[in-house]
Amino acid sequence: MISKVFEPDSIAVIGASSNREKWGHRILDNIISGGYAGVVYPVNPNKDEVLGMRCYPSVLNLPHRVDLGIIAVPAGSVPAVLEECGRKGTRGVVIVSAGFGEVGNTELEDRVRDIARDYEMRMIGPNTFGFINTHLHLNASIIPEMPEKGGISFVTQSGTFGLALVDWAASQQMGLHLVVGVGNKADVDDSDILAYMSADRHTKMIMMYIEGIERGRRFIDVASRIRKPIIALKTGRSQAGSKAALSHTGSLAGADRIYDGAFKQAGVIRAGTLEELFDSALALSISPPAGDGIGIISNGGGASILAADLCEDLGLHLPDLSERTVRMLTGVLSAIATPANPLDTAGNGSYEMFKAVTDIMLSDRSINALLVIYVHAEMVDPCLPAEAVIDAREGYDKPVITSWIGGTSIEAAVKLLEKNRIPNYPLPERAVVALNNLVRHKRILQKR
Amino acid sequence: MISKVFEPDSIAVIGASSNREKWGHRILDNIISGGYAGVVYPVNPNKDEVLGMRCYPSVLNLPHRVDLGIIAVPAGSVPAVLEECGRKGTRGVVIVSAGFGEVGNTELEDRVRDIARDYEMRMIGPNTFGFINTHLHLNASIIPEMPEKGGISFVTQSGTFGLALVDWAASQQMGLHLVVGVGNKADVDDSDILAYMSADRHTKMIMMYIEGIERGRRFIDVASRIRKPIIALKTGRSQAGSKAALSHTGSLAGADRIYDGAFKQAGVIRAGTLEELFDSALALSISPPAGDGIGIISNGGGASILAADLCEDLGLHLPDLSERTVRMLTGVLSAIATPANPLDTAGNGSYEMFKAVTDIMLSDRSINALLVIYVHAEMVDPCLPAEAVIDAREGYDKPVITSWIGGTSIEAAVKLLEKNRIPNYPLPERAVVALNNLVRHKRILQKR
Repeated sequence: MISKVFEPDSIAVIGASSNREKWGHRILDNIISGGYAGVVYPVNPNKDEVLGMRCYPSVLNLPHRVDLGIIAVPAGSVPAVLEECGRKGTRGVVIVSAGFGEVGNTELEDRVRDIARDYEMRMIGPNTFGFINTHLHLNASIIPEMPEKGGISFVTQSGTFGLALVDWAASQQMGLHLVVGVGNKADVDDSDILAYMSADRHTKMIMMYIEGIERGRRFIDVASRIRKPIIALKTGRSQAGSKAALSHTGSLAGADRIYDGAFKQAGVIRAGTLEELFDSALALSISPPAGDGIGIISNGGGASILAADLCEDLGLHLPDLSERTVRMLTGVLSAIATPANPLDTAGNGSYEMFKAVTDIMLSDRSINALLVIYVHAEMVDPCLPAEAVIDAREGYDKPVITSWIGGTSIEAAVKLLEKNRIPNYPLPERAVVALNNLVRHKRILQKR
Repeated sequence: MISKVFEPDSIAVIGASSNREKWGHRILDNIISGGYAGVVYPVNPNKDEVLGMRCYPSVLNLPHRVDLGIIAVPAGSVPAVLEECGRKGTRGVVIVSAGFGEVGNTELEDRVRDIARDYEMRMIGPNTFGFINTHLHLNASIIPEMPEKGGISFVTQSGTFGLALVDWAASQQMGLHLVVGVGNKADVDDSDILAYMSADRHTKMIMMYIEGIERGRRFIDVASRIRKPIIALKTGRSQAGSKAALSHTGSLAGADRIYDGAFKQAGVIRAGTLEELFDSALALSISPPAGDGIGIISNGGGASILAADLCEDLGLHLPDLSERTVRMLTGVLSAIATPANPLDTAGNGSYEMFKAVTDIMLSDRSINALLVIYVHAEMVDPCLPAEAVIDAREGYDKPVITSWIGGTSIEAAVKLLEKNRIPNYPLPERAVVALNNLVRHKRILQKR
């Protein structure tokens, strides 16, 4: 059962080490300093004690069987160690060790998989950085920090991007639930983890980084039944990139168009870049709009023109405003501003102006979602227009996202928006791309 | 003479005010606090003193004629004030006041232009945020901070983006020279400013934000003779965006394909987003590579696959490594790493590894430029691989750009890279886009 891997009551770290440069040290250290409440056993035949804890020569010597074995020993020793895990009744394993399919050693990888299957242990890896489960305070990975708790889960074939997401999340007050490195996917693959996350109550949306998928049909079957948003970045589409993927995780990257089709069938949103993947996770954490009518407000003309262009490029609709809306806007705007969508307040970024125009735009029936852009020019405290947006959206069940521009001087305002769960982006174009993916999610749900 | 506008010995601020909310106050305040060494006169018929300085009722009362008049009075009063500037022999003016062509008041705009021409004054605006000349410590704008000195100049039709660039530059230790808001371009337009910047010794590369260009032929003529890199973001290509541009600066955005063709003919690199514009300025500040052969190094597989994909999408070439390079790499890499391009050091981000592989990759004759990606995983001090790259590139005349990934824990390393003038990006895809524009600049120069 995969749940025994991701929600274990007890863990053995096999290959636990006092050497700070060994992964067996770092993972054990991370489990302990992360605050995991279950039982943890270090296992290493050459040590009596690791990190002040009693160390066992083999899992066979443990006082109980454990739910999860994390294996960080040289590749050649993995079969023997895994065999012992099986005999002891271990429920699942994570194989951190490298040197399998990704370096052409498929025979060893097959052997390891066969042992796991013989003993009915689910196996993550080999060649993975491990995983994090924030709700269990469990950092069974080499990632140095524990993210904040939240609803975003990430399945990644790259440890790099697991690390990058955790850093990103920390800088954005973005909460994560599971971060899982799938490695070479000898046993548990993306589809297995998707199925688990679909049922998992903490996961609200799913991010994926994929180098290659072996069982495409199964992936489509599993993904297309999930109503939570799924966004995936698939790389290895170039010749150089697919060769690199082969030596990274042993993945055959495959024809890119096939993946495009599979994602479409599966209802998986495809991200073009890592930035789009990360940015969209934030937007996909809020409720989607009822339609694709986007309203844009800004206090600076250039930014709203840029956003309007990109909306049209991406197929988002910028509806004309109703007569009533135009009349109400005329009542609050200065003579040098035009009541239109996109709306430019002609430099006015005051609380009163942002409150009024946000409210009026949200009240227009053709506007389903709103993008509010604020450019800081030191006339007002940038927290005031942020508060105006937070206040004005109350009473409307329409998604609002923002782009506050202004470097360090707007940090407090950005924190305020984040705390109120308004996805905020440092550039308007990034807000539009993320908002578009929220609309895509809505369309996927409608088609089902 | 435009040089009298951008390099004035004396300035009159007409509409100078003690009211902190008035632009006439902010610009005068910015000129003084920025450290401008020339003579400054506040002008306002209703004040005797502004900001502790003697205030004159009209430019006609000034003890001398001035090089530059900055006009921040209501639109209706601009003709009279401008007339006085002309009579006093003012060399050039910046009209900050709004309420002209952008709100349909083209008649007033024409009148103002005619007055300026009658007196042979060059005029920036109306409807502009002013300009900054860092080398003169002159902040004749509403932008609250003075950027660091540097070689990047920016011509923008949006005050928003002028502000955004100054914030961006501050956060990246990026040096600027001129930041100019062209506003409605009633007299001085992009081409005039390009011609000035072409000859200007401080400007090393030129960034542009354009909503519309009126005299396209002249733009092509001027731009195509400039050997400094020029990168432009042109918006208003969508229906909604072009309507918004009309009410922002009165620009007719025009068919987008025409602009595409014009930029190509003019040798202007077109950016698709604000992020690309800003990111590329950094890369375009270093010398271009001799060819389009790109080498990629990373300590994490996912990042190099992502970068390789994007290189191929953009038409950048990832050459196979020479036999000699492969042999040398085999000598330093561990058994689980493959000597290839892109090169993945399989987790090793040490000084020694990064020094060795950067050196070896740069020594390959088919590699013209190198992208080094480092993902921080707390094994080493992230400054060490940064130092390795800085040290290894000595002795090679090939551009090196980097992508250090790791949030707040890598800040010191990023500062180190920036200080050594290595363009660094928080995501590898952004590094590739910027590097591609450096290669495009090289191709433009070769075609001439």
